[in-house]
Amino acid sequence: MAEPLRVGVLGATGLAGQQVLVALARHPWFRVGAVAASEASMGKELGDALRDPSGASRWFADGAPDPGVLGLRCAAPAQLVEDGLDLVFSAVGKAAALEWEPRLAARIPVISTASAFRYEPDVPLLIPGVNNSHAEAIDEQRRRRRWKGFIAPIPNCTTTGLAVSLRPLNDRFGLRRVLMTSLQAISGAGRSDGVLALDVIDNVVPFIPEEEEKVQLETRKILGTWDGAFTPADFTVSCTCMRVNVQDGHTEAVFAATDRACDAESASGAMQAFSGDGLRGLPSAPDRLLAVTADPFRPQPRRDRDAGQGMTVTVGRIRADPAVGGVKYVVLSHNTKLGAGKGAVLLAEWLTREGYLGA
Amino acid sequence: MAEPLRVGVLGATGLAGQQVLVALARHPWFRVGAVAASEASMGKELGDALRDPSGASRWFADGAPDPGVLGLRCAAPAQLVEDGLDLVFSAVGKAAALEWEPRLAARIPVISTASAFRYEPDVPLLIPGVNNSHAEAIDEQRRRRRWKGFIAPIPNCTTTGLAVSLRPLNDRFGLRRVLMTSLQAISGAGRSDGVLALDVIDNVVPFIPEEEEKVQLETRKILGTWDGAFTPADFTVSCTCMRVNVQDGHTEAVFAATDRACDAESASGAMQAFSGDGLRGLPSAPDRLLAVTADPFRPQPRRDRDAGQGMTVTVGRIRADPAVGGVKYVVLSHNTKLGAGKGAVLLAEWLTREGYLGA
Amino acid sequence: MAEPLRVGVLGATGLAGQQVLVALARHPWFRVGAVAASEASMGKELGDALRDPSGASRWFADGAPDPGVLGLRCAAPAQLVEDGLDLVFSAVGKAAALEWEPRLAARIPVISTASAFRYEPDVPLLIPGVNNSHAEAIDEQRRRRRWKGFIAPIPNCTTTGLAVSLRPLNDRFGLRRVLMTSLQAISGAGRSDGVLALDVIDNVVPFIPEEEEKVQLETRKILGTWDGAFTPADFTVSCTCMRVNVQDGHTEAVFAATDRACDAESASGAMQAFSGDGLRGLPSAPDRLLAVTADPFRPQPRRDRDAGQGMTVTVGRIRADPAVGGVKYVVLSHNTKLGAGKGAVLLAEWLTREGYLGA
Amino acid sequence: MAEPLRVGVLGATGLAGQQVLVALARHPWFRVGAVAASEASMGKELGDALRDPSGASRWFADGAPDPGVLGLRCAAPAQLVEDGLDLVFSAVGKAAALEWEPRLAARIPVISTASAFRYEPDVPLLIPGVNNSHAEAIDEQRRRRRWKGFIAPIPNCTTTGLAVSLRPLNDRFGLRRVLMTSLQAISGAGRSDGVLALDVIDNVVPFIPEEEEKVQLETRKILGTWDGAFTPADFTVSCTCMRVNVQDGHTEAVFAATDRACDAESASGAMQAFSGDGLRGLPSAPDRLLAVTADPFRPQPRRDRDAGQGMTVTVGRIRADPAVGGVKYVVLSHNTKLGAGKGAVLLAEWLTREGYLGA
Repeated sequence: MAEPLRVGVLGATGLAGQQVLVALARHPWFRVGAVAASEASMGKELGDALRDPSGASRWFADGAPDPGVLGLRCAAPAQLVEDGLDLVFSAVGKAAALEWEPRLAARIPVISTASAFRYEPDVPLLIPGVNNSHAEAIDEQRRRRRWKGFIAPIPNCTTTGLAVSLRPLNDRFGLRRVLMTSLQAISGAGRSDGVLALDVIDNVVPFIPEEEEKVQLETRKILGTWDGAFTPADFTVSCTCMRVNVQDGHTEAVFAATDRACDAESASGAMQAFSGDGLRGLPSAPDRLLAVTADPFRPQPRRDRDAGQGMTVTVGRIRADPAVGGVKYVVLSHNTKLGAGKGAVLLAEWLTREGYLGA
Repeated sequence: MAEPLRVGVLGATGLAGQQVLVALARHPWFRVGAVAASEASMGKELGDALRDPSGASRWFADGAPDPGVLGLRCAAPAQLVEDGLDLVFSAVGKAAALEWEPRLAARIPVISTASAFRYEPDVPLLIPGVNNSHAEAIDEQRRRRRWKGFIAPIPNCTTTGLAVSLRPLNDRFGLRRVLMTSLQAISGAGRSDGVLALDVIDNVVPFIPEEEEKVQLETRKILGTWDGAFTPADFTVSCTCMRVNVQDGHTEAVFAATDRACDAESASGAMQAFSGDGLRGLPSAPDRLLAVTADPFRPQPRRDRDAGQGMTVTVGRIRADPAVGGVKYVVLSHNTKLGAGKGAVLLAEWLTREGYLGA
Repeated sequence: MAEPLRVGVLGATGLAGQQVLVALARHPWFRVGAVAASEASMGKELGDALRDPSGASRWFADGAPDPGVLGLRCAAPAQLVEDGLDLVFSAVGKAAALEWEPRLAARIPVISTASAFRYEPDVPLLIPGVNNSHAEAIDEQRRRRRWKGFIAPIPNCTTTGLAVSLRPLNDRFGLRRVLMTSLQAISGAGRSDGVLALDVIDNVVPFIPEEEEKVQLETRKILGTWDGAFTPADFTVSCTCMRVNVQDGHTEAVFAATDRACDAESASGAMQAFSGDGLRGLPSAPDRLLAVTADPFRPQPRRDRDAGQGMTVTVGRIRADPAVGGVKYVVLSHNTKLGAGKGAVLLAEWLTREGYLGA
Repeated sequence: MAEPLRVGVLGATGLAGQQVLVALARHPWFRVGAVAASEASMGKELGDALRDPSGASRWFADGAPDPGVLGLRCAAPAQLVEDGLDLVFSAVGKAAALEWEPRLAARIPVISTASAFRYEPDVPLLIPGVNNSHAEAIDEQRRRRRWKGFIAPIPNCTTTGLAVSLRPLNDRFGLRRVLMTSLQAISGAGRSDGVLALDVIDNVVPFIPEEEEKVQLETRKILGTWDGAFTPADFTVSCTCMRVNVQDGHTEAVFAATDRACDAESASGAMQAFSGDGLRGLPSAPDRLLAVTADPFRPQPRRDRDAGQGMTVTVGRIRADPAVGGVKYVVLSHNTKLGAGKGAVLLAEWLTREGYLGA
């Protein structure tokens, strides 16, 4: 690739934005050329905006951005539109996404971690390697909306690991019904509306507002089909989403009923045969998008979340389950890498190679 | 009750035995007359056996025993047989239970927290208020085995909360299929083979050996019928049991398919109408064996485990679930109170009133 | 006591206010007659103000208030002034305390958990049992300020345990220098500006803004003398205050240099001989304000914070320390009981008996 | 370096041994040629010895060893003596170290994580960069004991960070007295005698047997002088060592009295001017052995332990402290990297360059 693409990051001072910046550090294809943040930070150098008056750092992501990025001045969102960027990563909350993503997309491709546009009929929920053909919806989106750019959101972080693990089961055995209980990490809630220590120490919180609906809708959209319109996958999904005292890594216990008979060995075989379609050569792609462990005590969030530099989904405890009529298993994925900033960067890489970016 | 029954505690120095002693403190019906422990403690006063040479306490249960109990000398298990006790609480591991419970039961009623005899065809798994009629199996057990006493084990601590919550659903709607994921407290593993901090800090362990099999078997036995033999309940049960970083209180996410239509309101109504049969007047019984919370963020282990002094099972988040064909909900119970020592004492109380003890 | 005093609670919906309400539940001397809260709650019944629109409870304190209290309507602070109360507990932040405590104190005694007036030259920092004679400053305060009431704040929760443990050492050996490192519970930060789980999971935060200054100033004021003016105690205090992943209970490692020779036994003896002056008969007073444990692994916050229903300070690991020229030890106290709401209620009880209230 | 040295690891299956193996992965100077372990593992390939019959992994260290190492067969300790190795890393407990380290040292250099020989008068406690001149004691040790090899233990993991931070203060201001409270990570206790989750959840344990004595002795030995015999440093050290709920990274609050006046700025300057003597070019050495942070909320174990790949000690919160007559600060170091396996490897590297190994 001759020249790196020049990208902007909207919401650069927030935790989600910081994770995007880490994922872009020393990136061979992308160079951060502009950052935008909320009014309090505007005009400041990003490095200064990330330090409070007492000297305390407000950098909370694991890892560090490229040093040069900290010298960029925080722009207003509107400036990103005018800035001639090749791509914008949007890492803002839903309200800001509703306001700014369409204005940006009129001119520039936008890859978003926000949920604002995920359920639109012309917006794909792409996980590279899982539902590559849905990228065609981008063309339709541009046509309908008369945009030069587009909006491509990544899925909710709880959806991602589930969808990756279900893809080979659905292909091979046909899913009928998926019942999932998640044990979600506290980093999923971010900092601005973050989980209080008083609420999770020695505790579990069995409810995460709006989360279950997202996972139920998104999983079926991702594993459904696009032929000019989306048809959700032909199975039901039901979830109970809980918060546990874990920093990073969402653990999910899945019961999956299948159309065709499926035992532990064949389910495991199907999963091992699937490593993600067409990821080879993408800088942020792991060797395997999906890995299966034989250790009965795994996957564990602390020990397995960093598999494939946080981009590999790990499945374990695959067992035949006559009660559900299929299999049960446990799946783990890194919610702030594959499920957030680094997942967004992987999507940008894949869209670049497919010609949707930088052409 | 004229005279308190004189009870012995086998395994008095272990965590489970300590929990029994706490549940017996200032008990109006029972007085601890003898304690037995492992060889290292034999002949020592219990208070001394619970202090190590450095002065460190080995009392780890919440709460305290009657002070007089600490002055009892630790006997050998065989001495309990000869001691003219009205009842023995057995709080030892499976191997010791296999050896000692039958020898004791030949002479004295034994109420046990161990799993050793739970699956025998003439041994009931009683939860007072839930399956009272199963007590008749005790008569058969005595007859067959020519025992003066009997063995009555309490269920596994993960089973108890689940079975209590399922009882009214099964009565009203007919259960077809139960899929459960547990988030179990570390106290469930005790101390001698306890969970290492290194394994649960910032982590979840998705496997507890033998646990799922126990819950699956026991739930169907408890909710089944006895008419000279046990017939397991006519629904399937499948579990995934996990360990989380919580001290006490097992949280379980349940998907329950029912024969007859069941929505959130009717399921909640059925549960609220059930408060446990025939518990009134028992010293350790809660006002309600089963309570329903309307707070969407509850039940939480830290905030709800002590409901009813640890003897109330709390259900929340009841929702209709078309995917499973029934309802889903979250249930919480205190694993070391209702699910262990205090549950054993409640069983002893109930058996006393029913005439199985102290006659 | 013929008739209970009628008390008001300012800041009743906050965590500190909730803790006051728990400490006042079924109180033999005090009856909650009015509650005041922030604008959002005004006019609502307290029970409704403590439930959010989704049905989620906003009651976060351990324990429950008197049921009748939940039916009181939240007043504006100004209404408390007019309400003919015998006493107001103020459990608001510093800014609100600066505004409202003087307006209330002009008419009514105010016992406060806020720091706003702790350092005024006519305001005592009373710990009943420790510095009873400082109550005379209240008379001076009323005289100077021409108030019918007064302001009596309790100390910072980190100061309390330290000051209680130092009192007998200072009496017997003369303190010269106190160097303390605290490991503070997350509940000390409350909820509105609470500690994020992301900041303490698998972590320690070695700084709590303004905390060290408070402890250093307050300890010397409490252990100093009043004779028309306060003279701080004649020793130096230096602290490092840290936040650890503990719910309740502040643990402090103390190095104390003394004027007169002091070994482990004599220091322990002095502490054991001190159980707090003149606390007998006060409803919230523990049997001992200060207890010494011989177990080398104690005190521990989870296992010892509830000693004396959260009102006993526990000291352990007392060792001679030639390096500092005195002793070193570990002290633990319950920051949200003795160090907050229940400590405020104990102070009210003591002031009542001393004739400062309800006359 | 022409040919890598061939090294053995004694205690290769334990957690400490695993950490040594990780530190040796892809090492440019050392190649693991032999591993020894306890009887249960003897004769098995290391990879098999690290997997239990259920398929569960017994590899618990962060990171992975060289794949080839897993194919080595576990030898008996005695075989290491005969094996012609250039160096043995000993990562066993004290009793095994007492038995095997001298037998090995008679023939081969031994670098040990055990405490067994740390307090011998001819055994140096080397931290490369801090007390390099103490290496001369090795010559004396060999002479006296008529050994071809030697024993060079690393210090206790709690000592290391403290000693590194004190070195520049002692050089510049002369230390008089050091009072330290440690908040130690659970990994410090290893697994075989590991901290139970029940003991640290929502808790602090204020005692670690024998730890304080070690730190007090070792710090003075490290910062003392060698001229044919060791003279401990001329200041006193007193510690209180506590266990907190942190995985890795020991946090220590230090009060340091100095001979010469010392304020925050000059102490900070002295520390910043010290980056460790003669570490440049060693493969495991960090850029700086000691770093100072200006963020008042740092150092924090989770956020700072991996500085310098776990080999940089981080100091923060440096403040003048008139109470102690010097300064106070907080220091953090990684107990299982700098303080264990990787620290042992750094020592081996330094001894190699100094000519003590591989000659």
